[in-house]
Amino acid sequence: MAKTKKTLAPIHWEFGTLRNPTPLMLELEEYSKELYGFTQVERVMRGEEAAPTAAQQRIDRARAEAAAAALASTAVGTRLPDMHGYEKVTGKATFPVDVYPASGLYTRVLRSPYPHAKVKRLDVSKAEQLPGVMAVLTPKDCPTMDPPILAEEPSHHGEAVAAVAAVDEGVAEAALRLIEVEYEQLPFVLEARDAMKPGAPLVNSRYRSNAPRDPFVYKRGDAAKGFAEADVIVEGTSQTAWEQHVAMEPHNATALWERDKLTIWTSSQYVHRQRDVIADTLKMPHSKVRLISEYTGGGFGDKTRAYPYHMIAALLAKKAGRPVRYELTRKDVFLECTHNYPKYQELRLGFKRDGAMVALQSRAWVATGDSGARSNADDFESAIRIFKCPNVDVIGYAPYTNTGISGALRTVGEPSGNFAFAILVDQAAEKLNMDPLDLYLKNIEERVDQVVNLPFSSNGVRECLLKAAEAFGWKQKWQGWRKQRDLTKPQRGVGMMAFLCNKGAMSVPMTAVCQIDRDGSVRVVQAGADLGGGQRTTFAMIAAEVLGVAVGRVTVTKPDTEVTSDTGIVAGSRATKSIGSAVKAAAEDARAQLLEGAALKLNVPQSDLDIADGVIFAKADPSKKLTIAEAVAAGVVVVDQVVLPAGAPIIGKAVVPAPRGYSQKTLGAGFFEVEVDPGTGMVKVLKIVQAHDVGKAINPLAVENQIIGGAIQGMGKALTEEMIYDPATGVVVNPNLDDYKLHMMATMPEITTIAVEPIDVLGPFGAKGLGEPVNIPASPCIANAIYDAMGVRLSEIPMTPYRILKAVRSL
Amino acid sequence: MAKTKKTLAPIHWEFGTLRNPTPLMLELEEYSKELYGFTQVERVMRGEEAAPTAAQQRIDRARAEAAAAALASTAVGTRLPDMHGYEKVTGKATFPVDVYPASGLYTRVLRSPYPHAKVKRLDVSKAEQLPGVMAVLTPKDCPTMDPPILAEEPSHHGEAVAAVAAVDEGVAEAALRLIEVEYEQLPFVLEARDAMKPGAPLVNSRYRSNAPRDPFVYKRGDAAKGFAEADVIVEGTSQTAWEQHVAMEPHNATALWERDKLTIWTSSQYVHRQRDVIADTLKMPHSKVRLISEYTGGGFGDKTRAYPYHMIAALLAKKAGRPVRYELTRKDVFLECTHNYPKYQELRLGFKRDGAMVALQSRAWVATGDSGARSNADDFESAIRIFKCPNVDVIGYAPYTNTGISGALRTVGEPSGNFAFAILVDQAAEKLNMDPLDLYLKNIEERVDQVVNLPFSSNGVRECLLKAAEAFGWKQKWQGWRKQRDLTKPQRGVGMMAFLCNKGAMSVPMTAVCQIDRDGSVRVVQAGADLGGGQRTTFAMIAAEVLGVAVGRVTVTKPDTEVTSDTGIVAGSRATKSIGSAVKAAAEDARAQLLEGAALKLNVPQSDLDIADGVIFAKADPSKKLTIAEAVAAGVVVVDQVVLPAGAPIIGKAVVPAPRGYSQKTLGAGFFEVEVDPGTGMVKVLKIVQAHDVGKAINPLAVENQIIGGAIQGMGKALTEEMIYDPATGVVVNPNLDDYKLHMMATMPEITTIAVEPIDVLGPFGAKGLGEPVNIPASPCIANAIYDAMGVRLSEIPMTPYRILKAVRSL
Repeated sequence: MAKTKKTLAPIHWEFGTLRNPTPLMLELEEYSKELYGFTQVERVMRGEEAAPTAAQQRIDRARAEAAAAALASTAVGTRLPDMHGYEKVTGKATFPVDVYPASGLYTRVLRSPYPHAKVKRLDVSKAEQLPGVMAVLTPKDCPTMDPPILAEEPSHHGEAVAAVAAVDEGVAEAALRLIEVEYEQLPFVLEARDAMKPGAPLVNSRYRSNAPRDPFVYKRGDAAKGFAEADVIVEGTSQTAWEQHVAMEPHNATALWERDKLTIWTSSQYVHRQRDVIADTLKMPHSKVRLISEYTGGGFGDKTRAYPYHMIAALLAKKAGRPVRYELTRKDVFLECTHNYPKYQELRLGFKRDGAMVALQSRAWVATGDSGARSNADDFESAIRIFKCPNVDVIGYAPYTNTGISGALRTVGEPSGNFAFAILVDQAAEKLNMDPLDLYLKNIEERVDQVVNLPFSSNGVRECLLKAAEAFGWKQKWQGWRKQRDLTKPQRGVGMMAFLCNKGAMSVPMTAVCQIDRDGSVRVVQAGADLGGGQRTTFAMIAAEVLGVAVGRVTVTKPDTEVTSDTGIVAGSRATKSIGSAVKAAAEDARAQLLEGAALKLNVPQSDLDIADGVIFAKADPSKKLTIAEAVAAGVVVVDQVVLPAGAPIIGKAVVPAPRGYSQKTLGAGFFEVEVDPGTGMVKVLKIVQAHDVGKAINPLAVENQIIGGAIQGMGKALTEEMIYDPATGVVVNPNLDDYKLHMMATMPEITTIAVEPIDVLGPFGAKGLGEPVNIPASPCIANAIYDAMGVRLSEIPMTPYRILKAVRSL
Repeated sequence: MAKTKKTLAPIHWEFGTLRNPTPLMLELEEYSKELYGFTQVERVMRGEEAAPTAAQQRIDRARAEAAAAALASTAVGTRLPDMHGYEKVTGKATFPVDVYPASGLYTRVLRSPYPHAKVKRLDVSKAEQLPGVMAVLTPKDCPTMDPPILAEEPSHHGEAVAAVAAVDEGVAEAALRLIEVEYEQLPFVLEARDAMKPGAPLVNSRYRSNAPRDPFVYKRGDAAKGFAEADVIVEGTSQTAWEQHVAMEPHNATALWERDKLTIWTSSQYVHRQRDVIADTLKMPHSKVRLISEYTGGGFGDKTRAYPYHMIAALLAKKAGRPVRYELTRKDVFLECTHNYPKYQELRLGFKRDGAMVALQSRAWVATGDSGARSNADDFESAIRIFKCPNVDVIGYAPYTNTGISGALRTVGEPSGNFAFAILVDQAAEKLNMDPLDLYLKNIEERVDQVVNLPFSSNGVRECLLKAAEAFGWKQKWQGWRKQRDLTKPQRGVGMMAFLCNKGAMSVPMTAVCQIDRDGSVRVVQAGADLGGGQRTTFAMIAAEVLGVAVGRVTVTKPDTEVTSDTGIVAGSRATKSIGSAVKAAAEDARAQLLEGAALKLNVPQSDLDIADGVIFAKADPSKKLTIAEAVAAGVVVVDQVVLPAGAPIIGKAVVPAPRGYSQKTLGAGFFEVEVDPGTGMVKVLKIVQAHDVGKAINPLAVENQIIGGAIQGMGKALTEEMIYDPATGVVVNPNLDDYKLHMMATMPEITTIAVEPIDVLGPFGAKGLGEPVNIPASPCIANAIYDAMGVRLSEIPMTPYRILKAVRSL
């Protein structure tokens, strides 16, 4: 194995310093200047706080207008059940995993039993001869892809080596046992810090280094000086776990070829990206590959990329000349699909005696796995964006490791970064002898993002803190920094935190088509996945609101790359805000066309018209009116300045660019009460209050569901969920739902959800995303509550009974 | 039965006279004035021929430009096989009839054995109790529709009375036999002329009269005066048959309910119209009913409407709570679906000695059936539109009859009208002792439609006549008006005709969406049905041509009302011209957006750019270039005059209004050679030459296939196809493909196809429709050829051996 030495030169993140300004940075500095009258640099030089200016007043006006629109709405703001909920809960909904094409074959995949090995010999001839086997796939059948479709040098346990398509799953399974493989085992490394040590085994010989990429670096001010000036310093390490998404619907791909065209049904968060990668890998035009994903039975960040399994299904179908379905077993999912990466973090915070944070230093290491996108080693946004802390010094490393592909799991790395930060803030509050709630209130900045020096599109974190504390009864429940506890019986404790999460921004592409049919009913043609968060219902409500029709008259299509345009991923808490904006703009385009015909027909200027309950009317004289259906019939097309009847229903469309000039983040606060049994180490969560800045709740019921679901998932992250690699063999020891523990109904606490609605300046009707940050509070709140109950500080999640007992016994 | 007397007041067809001018008529007269400098009225007053004017020169210029565009094209004009042909011929294509939903039920329908009856008692209780029967439908379960979904007063043989959904077709069939029905038979009438006689039985008690509608009336000049001035008069009657479409794929509907949403897979020519009617009948928003029709296994005008069977499947599925599929048996199709109506026509023509036609009088009766659209009693367009004949007097009647629903069958009534006309023209030529080819050449008008007084968008009928005559060898084969024939052995003969067909105009709605993906490949999202005429391939070629990409990089969607906008029917020979225009306009919209980004990137004005082979380049400096994929990436959105990156693929869309100012017709000529066996009366078609004005052949292979298919279908119409109602019982005696005779491979003649390409001013790249007129020449050509061979004139089709022998024996 060749080894190359590479200097890890720190880079300067766009807005951290002005030493290497990028054009975008300069442009945003300009924008900042327009808004505030001075740039960040000038402001730092002056040592001033930003004061409201005419520009700030403009923002406040925009926010007030959005708030007024939200208030005036009829559809938006009502509690609506998921429009497809009935089908889902009755089992009638056809999820991709329910697609069984006629004459379809079944797939099983042979996977590496070793974390790193070379395939010296692969003989599939006996498998091919087994009756019922229709095709066997080996690496030599596969085009190049990263990670490889079938590996000749598997570099994590469970990487696919060969695949079989057969008439049923039993035959396919039997065929796997007839495949002869000779492996040469190679050295492996599992942990991020180990992977970066000199002399560490190279994760895969296709890499030149385990850490070829620049680390994440962010600096502002002078951290050493900050710590020198601090009155109180807290520091510690934290460790998070390999964590699985455990979506209810297992990953699957069903491939069907029609001559030069490939259709794949798959459970997806982003059919267009997958389509593009699959088409590029197969060297086919994108238009000739079609991905369909009617419903998605949970995604959580795991169903965003084109996996080897997609290619395996497609290549087997091509080879067999018949459709092939591959429904991954739960073990397959654990081994092939992504998991959230574990993060080891060394964090140090400095505070003045009054509670003001003055310095932050962080070093973090995450295990990227043997492939995959650059992991986020930078996710502790609360600290650097809404804490006014002037001195920051952050470095994060994400080397390769001989573990499965790492990837996003609802909020990517925010829960781990916020875990590390919020348990130290709690310690700092204790040292400062302050209520931690007060420490947050002291430090949070509500107007300007401290990294990009742009105003927040909305920031309701203070309101979240205050409302959640009130609903939780924090002032009554929190007993101060107690010293005495009776550890002979179950102890109760409370913990809290507040956060900013670097998710939820509008991002391109944002596209949608909105059609109005002859009877005035509406179809939204869009590609946003329906992950269970009520996404399509939200889009229907937005279109209904814009067009003044009942929500029940609106349908929203499923993701299908053949008929929709790329509107980006449903992830990153972007769907409501980004796709919702596209849907809103498309509906507005349709509305404008509708009113164009209506204005001619009613002989009223277009701007004087409004729509309510399916009727278009002149605002000044409501007796001048016609139905939407009549307006569709009156639709016109202007050709060479001649107005001609369109004779057609209306097609509205929108391509929305990314907005500029705002920092768009998600924010919230959590308060947890737990009971810890010192005898068993079991933690029972009794009560959760979470408050989130949602901008404006388009559908308060969906908001409530998201918060509840996220809080429960957060409990799993905090207390039970951990995929375990055996350090000796590099093998996953618990790739199943018996040994990988999830919370169940029996352990559900009382959960109170609070939607704070400060109105986001950019989002549709003031809304912003919420999908991810809902799982952030659980881990730090529970850790802080365990400390309150037991007097032990845990810094490793999940906080299993073993770890709790270990900590208690070390007291 | 109540009887009401109603005066059948003639109405004046829009352009026939100016006695009752409509606004549209006046507008078009104005347009005519602009074009020609005088209106039709003035022209008639002046007794002048229209002379080319500046306006005419403008038309000629437009045509020349379209011709140049067509010539410059790369995709358009190449011979491409149907892009889905492979799937179709290998049985891999999923036609709607191939849709078998999980847990789907099967349907059988109980049909009236009488042509007219009242259901006195209907007891389905025993059927409901049969194990395996999941739902039984009776009239009381059905909302109102015309015709009724299930009839309480069936008024034609085979009208549906009750329906059953069961676990398989055998159980459903058995259940039908357990349904007890008591009928009261009512008097019936089958023939159109009988239905209009005083005292005729009323076809259905829901009607007040068998002929409640105004007859079709068209007059110009003074027919009596014309005949008085004529040197030669010919007259005769003609009779056509009840004819079935016999599409390969039987009608079918598979219905699936998801709470408030209904999906129906059905073999269709026009999913949007069917969707609208089904939704309205069920009082549902249009957007909540989804019709899907991937491929359509033949339509020929029979799959354009919402039938009772669609409603039966939907209502049974609702009642059973499971998906229901109803695949009609061939007998079901014969009895429930439409057929072409029989026409009885009395026609009289007057000619001057030099061959100029001076008078035409026609009276025609068609049997509408007991429901359905107004039948076309007016279809003999050749006569009144391109023959200069100044004196015309036409009346057509379309009363109800106790026969199945009448409807369009490829070219609606044009074949029967042209049959009546062309066999008389042949007789006139004989009386005038002229070559019939010369008689056509003498009379045809090539520039101005004689009815609407508008220029033809293209008219290549003269070229069709001359080229087809040349290819056929008419001058050699036609022996003049022979008197001697040897009727003891098979005789050969030739016949010809030329026609104008009142089909092929662009009509609204015309809509399409055209998307360009990131790699520069293209998806056309449109709703035009794929009937087998290569429609989707044609659309792909048009988009490829506009966007400068290979046809193989373009996909075209199937009809699916959830994701497409109504783009009108695939019928009336309108698809290529109407939907093709929408596709072209949508592609042009996408192209403009593409070039907008490219122009910014290349710093070249948009108008200076062109595209070829997927590369955008500056026409003046081809080294300035970028790929379409790069241009997509450079796409922009302009918001408040600020140019922002779109970050999205491109969405082009088009809503095209109906063009004005031209008469858009389809034209052509046919030459047939036959051999008649006087012993058996069998006619063998030996040779067919058909030439058609196609404007411009987008895909010459598809054009050729259409002509061949139409010629063969025309042979069936001429010689074998006839659905027979027993006059005594009103029952269809041959509702099956044993007794209803189609031509087979063994009887195929040599067929030569000629595409005449005069370039249509309006059509995409100069193209026009061709789907229908291809079946017009067969009947009159064969009748004329039989006369040439045998000396007997047949005026009733199909010209079966029985009718031929009868005619020969009457010599």
